[in-house]
Amino acid sequence: MTLSQEWRIKGEAKRQAILTAIPEKWRLAAPPPPATEVRDFTGTYIQQYLTEREIEITESDAVDIVKQTTSGRWSAVEVTEAFCHRAAVAHQLASLEETMNLFFEAAIEDARKLDEYFAEHKDPIGPLHGLPVSLKDQFHVRGVETTMGYLGWVGSFEGQRDDQRFKSEESELTRELRSLGAVLYCKTSVPATLMAGETVNNIIGYTWNPKNRLLSSGGSSGGEGALIALRGSPVGFGTDIGGSVRSPAGFNFLYGLRPSSGRMPYQGAANSMDGQSSILSVIGPLAQSARSLSFIFKSILSAQPWYHDPLVLELPWRESIIDETRSLIDQAKTVKSTLAFGLMSYDGVNRIHPPIARAMKLVEGTLERLGHTFIPWNPPSHTRGNQIAGEIFGMDGGKNLQHHLGLSGEPQAPQVITKQGGTELNATEIAALNVLKRDYQKEYMDYWNSTAQLTGTGRPVDGVLLPVAPHAAAIPNHYKVVNYTAFVNVLDYTSVVVPVTHADKMVDVMSDDSTYETDDYIDWNYDADTYDGAPVGVHLLGRRLQEEKMLTIAEYIGEEIALDVRHK
Amino acid sequence: MTLSQEWRIKGEAKRQAILTAIPEKWRLAAPPPPATEVRDFTGTYIQQYLTEREIEITESDAVDIVKQTTSGRWSAVEVTEAFCHRAAVAHQLASLEETMNLFFEAAIEDARKLDEYFAEHKDPIGPLHGLPVSLKDQFHVRGVETTMGYLGWVGSFEGQRDDQRFKSEESELTRELRSLGAVLYCKTSVPATLMAGETVNNIIGYTWNPKNRLLSSGGSSGGEGALIALRGSPVGFGTDIGGSVRSPAGFNFLYGLRPSSGRMPYQGAANSMDGQSSILSVIGPLAQSARSLSFIFKSILSAQPWYHDPLVLELPWRESIIDETRSLIDQAKTVKSTLAFGLMSYDGVNRIHPPIARAMKLVEGTLERLGHTFIPWNPPSHTRGNQIAGEIFGMDGGKNLQHHLGLSGEPQAPQVITKQGGTELNATEIAALNVLKRDYQKEYMDYWNSTAQLTGTGRPVDGVLLPVAPHAAAIPNHYKVVNYTAFVNVLDYTSVVVPVTHADKMVDVMSDDSTYETDDYIDWNYDADTYDGAPVGVHLLGRRLQEEKMLTIAEYIGEEIALDVRHK
Repeated sequence: MTLSQEWRIKGEAKRQAILTAIPEKWRLAAPPPPATEVRDFTGTYIQQYLTEREIEITESDAVDIVKQTTSGRWSAVEVTEAFCHRAAVAHQLASLEETMNLFFEAAIEDARKLDEYFAEHKDPIGPLHGLPVSLKDQFHVRGVETTMGYLGWVGSFEGQRDDQRFKSEESELTRELRSLGAVLYCKTSVPATLMAGETVNNIIGYTWNPKNRLLSSGGSSGGEGALIALRGSPVGFGTDIGGSVRSPAGFNFLYGLRPSSGRMPYQGAANSMDGQSSILSVIGPLAQSARSLSFIFKSILSAQPWYHDPLVLELPWRESIIDETRSLIDQAKTVKSTLAFGLMSYDGVNRIHPPIARAMKLVEGTLERLGHTFIPWNPPSHTRGNQIAGEIFGMDGGKNLQHHLGLSGEPQAPQVITKQGGTELNATEIAALNVLKRDYQKEYMDYWNSTAQLTGTGRPVDGVLLPVAPHAAAIPNHYKVVNYTAFVNVLDYTSVVVPVTHADKMVDVMSDDSTYETDDYIDWNYDADTYDGAPVGVHLLGRRLQEEKMLTIAEYIGEEIALDVRHK
Repeated sequence: MTLSQEWRIKGEAKRQAILTAIPEKWRLAAPPPPATEVRDFTGTYIQQYLTEREIEITESDAVDIVKQTTSGRWSAVEVTEAFCHRAAVAHQLASLEETMNLFFEAAIEDARKLDEYFAEHKDPIGPLHGLPVSLKDQFHVRGVETTMGYLGWVGSFEGQRDDQRFKSEESELTRELRSLGAVLYCKTSVPATLMAGETVNNIIGYTWNPKNRLLSSGGSSGGEGALIALRGSPVGFGTDIGGSVRSPAGFNFLYGLRPSSGRMPYQGAANSMDGQSSILSVIGPLAQSARSLSFIFKSILSAQPWYHDPLVLELPWRESIIDETRSLIDQAKTVKSTLAFGLMSYDGVNRIHPPIARAMKLVEGTLERLGHTFIPWNPPSHTRGNQIAGEIFGMDGGKNLQHHLGLSGEPQAPQVITKQGGTELNATEIAALNVLKRDYQKEYMDYWNSTAQLTGTGRPVDGVLLPVAPHAAAIPNHYKVVNYTAFVNVLDYTSVVVPVTHADKMVDVMSDDSTYETDDYIDWNYDADTYDGAPVGVHLLGRRLQEEKMLTIAEYIGEEIALDVRHK
């Protein structure tokens, strides 16, 4: 048996193990139809497998769910079972391509204990009492394997055999979620290395976009994106070092938050190039509503992660910032231009597709209707920011991924941006790179400050609107440009993805409409038919550590866009 | 002329230029007596050169000074002239060994503008209106050279010839100080490389301790320490990567703050190994009173440095933490044990001298008298923390200092802990080191949390008391152990030095007093006569980013110790 056969067999075994974890009653009788027959598995399609009650529960957002579970109206077991069932169906529909680990029995047992607690104390155990939460397969959960997409990690702790922490260690986020009352029930797929905008690995294959199965669910938190799009989870945690929360959010019509580093606890989670400290990967939630992001983010902060993770900042949820931001929003009804935004539909380098251009126009129109101001956004080059990110991501010359792929002999997915056999940087070179990064951050900051002269509000812009990517959910192996997201990781700014619309082949066509400059949405690999139905989100950028403000604005924009879309 | 002669001549020229910057009226008629004749230049000795009015002004602390200058009772010019005069005398007394740059004319001109502003607006320009502030020679001030102790930087911008930024660039801290109304008038000496606990360089030589001229003023912010001890400055800014604010504070009977990274703006300051991001050097103030530290720290935060330095956190001065801490302090009058402290007089490795043991006992006694609790402090090994720091400081194999020393061919001072010709780490090794560091931080944090079981307050300890160093101000070339400070930089915790007492050869002798374990203060190079009169401070450690709390406790401890000392 050759090495190449070995890894295939190992992957097949793990795939089977995941299927086996699904109770028989939840297994589908027949394999799902191909994408050419049914492009969209979300909404009514997946509902056919569920009871009305299950649909009611699983289509509620996290805030509505906890209203029921923390007041005892819905039991934790019922809610957990509903999500387990839906996640099981989602996993099978998506042909084994979404969840890496399902642990329903443990989840239902945990839910039972929560119900007992409630019965005894007449009070929830915490703000997340009875809320199922999905986790990207970087977080350790006791009793459950973490593979992070590497075949060589199967049956080991992060690739280390005979390590006592295997299936016993929990990541800090896991511990906090439990202490707050959340129920953990599945872990979702990632590309091995995490350094890809699509989710593909040698264990369970490719995670397709459930809304348009010809396209990618994004990456590296693509399993979260697909699962939440199918409402197999109300809220989940991904990670982002170059766009890995934002692309799955944008590609799956979800809200997604990339907070600044130092707010969410990464302690004890698996990672690529752990200890690389020039650009820190950050944890961010994805959900169907903005308020779910705020709610889960605030809940985690209530566990005071700064006392348990040395890299977390003592920065509790700041209600005062919410109040200030809401006050600006409310004043917009009477005073003109209370919020101001930078607008960058096109970064001058990477052409955007017609659906993206339309989404940007839509948001712009909505905010202008509400009396807010836009100024053109001409910051220090995002290409430069992206280059800095690329050099940092490749600073070990690919040694880390080479080691972990080498554990099983599996091949590297072509989508992975880090390459093996590169040149490893030394301390002097890394220090110089950190200075380049800081200089870029300083220039961007100064540019942001300078807009106080232009906004008319007396302040610099409150946020910047830009695309998530040049395209909607990518055609497999065609996600080539991360210029709209990776510079944010260099800056370490807060950013939120807001779902806006869906690609429409009847509307989103090449056009000579004079309101657009042709260059802004030239048909760069654009295939209107393939993209038809794909979700489109926009990217809202805020200053560093401004999560409270940006989540508040994201919720506001989302609500107003929904009104405008409904109106049409 | 050999290279070795060249650098000597260059140093001599710079020394002369500094002397020339002193107005003739302020030059001393005769050279100062040797240390064997007059050991202590502080207090009455330096006062002989000053008018009563100048003494009144220069011996006021920063808070009292701004009370006068922001209300127009003292003019900025008068205050500035008084400090310029005293700094000029201090510099000459200390035989050219304290200040690197004096720029009195520019300072008095700036002060004049402040007075004009006040005359016109009947209001100060900012909270620091008319306050002279000294700066370690890492901060760029327009019109003034920055050498950072390197001969090769004379006449250049950080060693780069024909760089437009030479004498034109200002560091962010400088800009903020000006905007708040501070007057800049001198920059103080540092050891080239900054990596030394004593202050010695090939430009102006060795900075002696003005209280006991047989000893060191500490380092690397030793120029600040000596100048403020002589009251040639009311408050100054140093930097700390292994103890460089705290040793000069402790050695000179001053308060000194090492804040956590991300609070004070380092942007645009010169540094060693700039871009090394595993342990960030931080800026911290030194002053004669704790309230001066709080005041200047709060003032800098009022300039919102987070909008001007990408590495500063948006964390304004938190009055609420002050209130909570004060409330605990006030309750101590009626409720027993409202604050709890860890006590570590001896780290189990590095013997402490009798004066240090006595200072620790003194503080312990004071706090116990006030009803607070102590628990023994047995944290993860500080030696391990120190080793991590050492590996980080040496990660470039000494290339950075080799380059800068090489600009002039000057030799490296023996006190510098970083060595040339070491092995440079690569990206993989640095990442592994960062993981070691994070693991250490996590263990220390968990240990800190665990003390909630022992304190009786329901909280973990509020702070930890430990020595600054095993000895009072070091005998030249005998500062060998940084185990009591460098681990703090690995942890990135807040720490404050509190001045306590002075070494006394009649009291601080080897003793078999059974209240001490002999091991705790064995005479490790202890020379009672040489140390006689040397200041002794203690080191108060707090959690990360707890500057408001630790400054409040430091002020409280300082006041109560002063009462106890006066009482005796």
